[in-house]
Amino acid sequence: MEEISSLLTEQTFAINTVWVALCAALIFFMEAGFALLEAGFIRSKNTMSIIAKVIIDITFGGIAFFIVGFGIAYGASNGWFAFDMGISSNDLGLGLTVSNKLFWFIQLGFAVAAISIVSGALAERMKLWAYAILVFVFCALLYPLVANWVWNPNGWLALRGFNDFAGSAAVHAMGGFAALAAALVLGPRLGKYNEDGSSNTIPGHNLPLAAVGAFILWFGWFGFNPGSSLGAVGNWELIGSVVVNTFLASAAGGIATMVYTYFTYKKIDITMVINGILAGLVSITAGCNVVGPGSAIVIGLIAGVLVDVAVLFFDRLKVDDPVGAVAVHGVNGLFGTVAVGFFAQEGGLLFGGGTSLLFTQIIGVLSIALFSFCLTYLIMKFLKMTVGIRVSKEEEKAGIDAVSFGVKSYTSNE
Amino acid sequence: MEEISSLLTEQTFAINTVWVALCAALIFFMEAGFALLEAGFIRSKNTMSIIAKVIIDITFGGIAFFIVGFGIAYGASNGWFAFDMGISSNDLGLGLTVSNKLFWFIQLGFAVAAISIVSGALAERMKLWAYAILVFVFCALLYPLVANWVWNPNGWLALRGFNDFAGSAAVHAMGGFAALAAALVLGPRLGKYNEDGSSNTIPGHNLPLAAVGAFILWFGWFGFNPGSSLGAVGNWELIGSVVVNTFLASAAGGIATMVYTYFTYKKIDITMVINGILAGLVSITAGCNVVGPGSAIVIGLIAGVLVDVAVLFFDRLKVDDPVGAVAVHGVNGLFGTVAVGFFAQEGGLLFGGGTSLLFTQIIGVLSIALFSFCLTYLIMKFLKMTVGIRVSKEEEKAGIDAVSFGVKSYTSNE
Amino acid sequence: MEEISSLLTEQTFAINTVWVALCAALIFFMEAGFALLEAGFIRSKNTMSIIAKVIIDITFGGIAFFIVGFGIAYGASNGWFAFDMGISSNDLGLGLTVSNKLFWFIQLGFAVAAISIVSGALAERMKLWAYAILVFVFCALLYPLVANWVWNPNGWLALRGFNDFAGSAAVHAMGGFAALAAALVLGPRLGKYNEDGSSNTIPGHNLPLAAVGAFILWFGWFGFNPGSSLGAVGNWELIGSVVVNTFLASAAGGIATMVYTYFTYKKIDITMVINGILAGLVSITAGCNVVGPGSAIVIGLIAGVLVDVAVLFFDRLKVDDPVGAVAVHGVNGLFGTVAVGFFAQEGGLLFGGGTSLLFTQIIGVLSIALFSFCLTYLIMKFLKMTVGIRVSKEEEKAGIDAVSFGVKSYTSNE
Repeated sequence: MEEISSLLTEQTFAINTVWVALCAALIFFMEAGFALLEAGFIRSKNTMSIIAKVIIDITFGGIAFFIVGFGIAYGASNGWFAFDMGISSNDLGLGLTVSNKLFWFIQLGFAVAAISIVSGALAERMKLWAYAILVFVFCALLYPLVANWVWNPNGWLALRGFNDFAGSAAVHAMGGFAALAAALVLGPRLGKYNEDGSSNTIPGHNLPLAAVGAFILWFGWFGFNPGSSLGAVGNWELIGSVVVNTFLASAAGGIATMVYTYFTYKKIDITMVINGILAGLVSITAGCNVVGPGSAIVIGLIAGVLVDVAVLFFDRLKVDDPVGAVAVHGVNGLFGTVAVGFFAQEGGLLFGGGTSLLFTQIIGVLSIALFSFCLTYLIMKFLKMTVGIRVSKEEEKAGIDAVSFGVKSYTSNE
Repeated sequence: MEEISSLLTEQTFAINTVWVALCAALIFFMEAGFALLEAGFIRSKNTMSIIAKVIIDITFGGIAFFIVGFGIAYGASNGWFAFDMGISSNDLGLGLTVSNKLFWFIQLGFAVAAISIVSGALAERMKLWAYAILVFVFCALLYPLVANWVWNPNGWLALRGFNDFAGSAAVHAMGGFAALAAALVLGPRLGKYNEDGSSNTIPGHNLPLAAVGAFILWFGWFGFNPGSSLGAVGNWELIGSVVVNTFLASAAGGIATMVYTYFTYKKIDITMVINGILAGLVSITAGCNVVGPGSAIVIGLIAGVLVDVAVLFFDRLKVDDPVGAVAVHGVNGLFGTVAVGFFAQEGGLLFGGGTSLLFTQIIGVLSIALFSFCLTYLIMKFLKMTVGIRVSKEEEKAGIDAVSFGVKSYTSNE
Repeated sequence: MEEISSLLTEQTFAINTVWVALCAALIFFMEAGFALLEAGFIRSKNTMSIIAKVIIDITFGGIAFFIVGFGIAYGASNGWFAFDMGISSNDLGLGLTVSNKLFWFIQLGFAVAAISIVSGALAERMKLWAYAILVFVFCALLYPLVANWVWNPNGWLALRGFNDFAGSAAVHAMGGFAALAAALVLGPRLGKYNEDGSSNTIPGHNLPLAAVGAFILWFGWFGFNPGSSLGAVGNWELIGSVVVNTFLASAAGGIATMVYTYFTYKKIDITMVINGILAGLVSITAGCNVVGPGSAIVIGLIAGVLVDVAVLFFDRLKVDDPVGAVAVHGVNGLFGTVAVGFFAQEGGLLFGGGTSLLFTQIIGVLSIALFSFCLTYLIMKFLKMTVGIRVSKEEEKAGIDAVSFGVKSYTSNE
């Protein structure tokens, strides 16, 4: 009898390990999605530099999250911060049924996703080593503090019942508002805005490559959201709901952008459709565990329009965000987190749950966005005053690939 | 004791949920494969338009399959059709050990795969919104009816013992013959056929991109076929057989095309080799659960030659199918379904099983192909008479990307 | 009681089948990674030819490994070789809890990975059919013999306690030293080396495409290494360790190359950074099950420098290896295998384990490298004397794509 019981426990750990290890691999693959999406949406002269930035997200961010970040996020917490060096083997108080190391690997995917959002907004003009410092600090301190608030069992937002299942707030708003601050300090690309205040479109050099990236992100999201269950045993209904909501919001987001841009501009804006799909995904990420499929569609539809409006809004403010990271991740991360307060089947305002959850969601996501914006702003200012953050005008004109790497992305060498 | 029993049931659901959720994610990723394969095989001026069409397959097709389609396919059936709105939470009579929602998500992958086959055959000349209507009707009605016949426990083909494990008939022949009908109504691209009846080769603009797509499809097929088990508990031997058969048929298909085109044209036709691999995959999809590995190789070898012959055949008929969708999916879906009647280890003609299964397979796949062809033909005719299906000659010459989307796939902007 | 016990066994098989089937799919997808990495790093005139070579790796290699290879690797062994035709259904003595067929499929991934390493080193100048023969022999005989030594329970290296968890030696050193031998016999590309002994850089034609390949390889490695557990039940801690070590070594490898090339050349060499990441992955593949995370970082850091030095070293020797396969897989496969002898937490020299394991690791990997080098050298010499291995000078200048396939990778056909 005891033997059976011990084998059952062993099997539960095995099932959840299979689930988390493979979802984590999908989440990790999203880095390819970020890299290629961003690469396709910018000019060819900076393509390898943006891919290098995403590689820095993974490598510097990963090491930072290993040495310092994880301990801050999931160490014994007093509600605001925590610390244990490396990957603690102590019980983290999360009721994990996978090893702490495997939990680290899936959390790593979230951390580097957050910073990869930032890389897009800084494309085509940021110094590489300064960026590496930003990445290190972001993944060692900033992101882990927010993860602590939201997902550490003692985090102040966790204790308040803040619902951010897979990170509309902790990953996407976090990354999106850091991107906004960083883009503001860095300033727009040369030639992006004219003296009369109008802006120039700088088209992406390889839209099919961006589409490859978008499809990989879409695929990876089916690890990102359901994988946040952190285990399958006891969660078979939850996982079904999460994948359906994730899909429906993304489809609705794509359709909304397609229709909206068609009626607004008489042409479908296909790059915006890609962003609309991603906006749908970002916006359902917080609530995919608690909303019904109909609500997922509504959330996606709103996100698909919101992203179009937000892209124009930030362009009017002369925030040069070459890939729309702020609109996709910042605005829709914020929207998606707040949407939980309206659409949650239990506790949502529209489902008779009153305003309590709604206020928690608003307070939580605004705290995160503000924290992320301010800290990133200060770090970027500090980097600007010290090591410098912007490549020279000559380098910016010639392209970072040629000057900093000595390569061309495409060589015609028949 | 009861506790153990209940935990065992919970674990079975968990194991099967992990399996189906991840296979479904792989199947979903095949949409990237369709998009990139098709994009690489056509001209750059229509690249984003074909990617947009696959996005429409997913988004419009997905919403249609959610609202209407799934209820028709898997609702309480009288053998020919069924209906429940949305995703029913009733027992579907399939003995599922995953949630109905998760089952919906894996079925969605089959539905959008079927319509994505069609998108390829209509490349470079079809109006986008008319295509969106076709997609909606196809995923709301046509595909679900056929899925009902084949996979609903009360479906008339299911009751007859029709063996179409992962959909050589219900997905591939279904999509391939819809593609044939649609391409016939739409007519060939401008400049494809000369007045003397000869045809011009219009080379794909980016073959490495097509290869990316092909590899993703190949990868995804290892979710598509074994995932059709709908669960791993009790199926460990089956899953092993299915993956081995799937691999062997694809390898044999590739080799057959390589050898065949080399001896026929003195040059290996590498784009046909890609199609040969896909043909091998399509043809093993019906019978991967019931044939032996040797038979899988033979089926793949035949498929790899059949696809070459079929491409030429349809070209002679002046069916302009830019990516070979009819030959790959239609002809080999038909062949693969019939092949079960010959090669099944139990019931196959060549293994002493007589002709009963063979006749069922023939009747089933012909019914599906005919149904798909006729209904799609009528819908396309109706669309042609109403909203119009073909872009203007000016747009076709200038490219759909420039006229309908206002973008260029590739921008040289050093 | 007996029923419960039998259901528990059934569940264990199911869990492990899910794990191995999906890891094997990830490993299979690495072939896309090899193909695109190699394609991006060479000239566009030979792009489809290298993709064709990887397709040959999979198709010819797969059939060879089915008919002959698997029986040699895992048949009843006398310690040096074995033989059973096809996929034996006998107990292989490995304590498998998945079907022999599924085990075959994951082993297939290792076999075709090994030969795919070779394809890169032979890029842009090798005859296709001669290459197909090499692939067949390699996957039917050479690789299986080494797999027999290392992973067959009766293999002479297995019996000595040789630790090569996922194949730094059996896959990567094996492939890398075969690549070295084959490149030596084949000779450098026309125009690679000047009469004065200096060498010309031949830049890759599409670095973003190479990056797509690298990201796919990186992703697939999270199937390659943890999947080598061959099951999850009882392995939840092991799997966590393996994924963390795999990640950390890759991150460290990337950082090391970034820093090293920056300080050596004043420019970051981004193509070398990609190779540095891969070198980190190759070098941790042997010991990811037995080293701690700190050691994984150290191993990755060394690998990231070693690959830079090795690329230059082989270039000085005028071994023309267009994608750096020998440096990445050969040198780092060798290094990673030996590193186990230093860093293993039990038995490693640096952890007080003495020199016994270290000697076993050295003897094992040298035997494999030497065997692979010599046999491949002989086969290539034999092919050179018989069917010929090198395309004509005219074909090499015009490109294999145009002459042997009659296609262009990229067609400007607005």
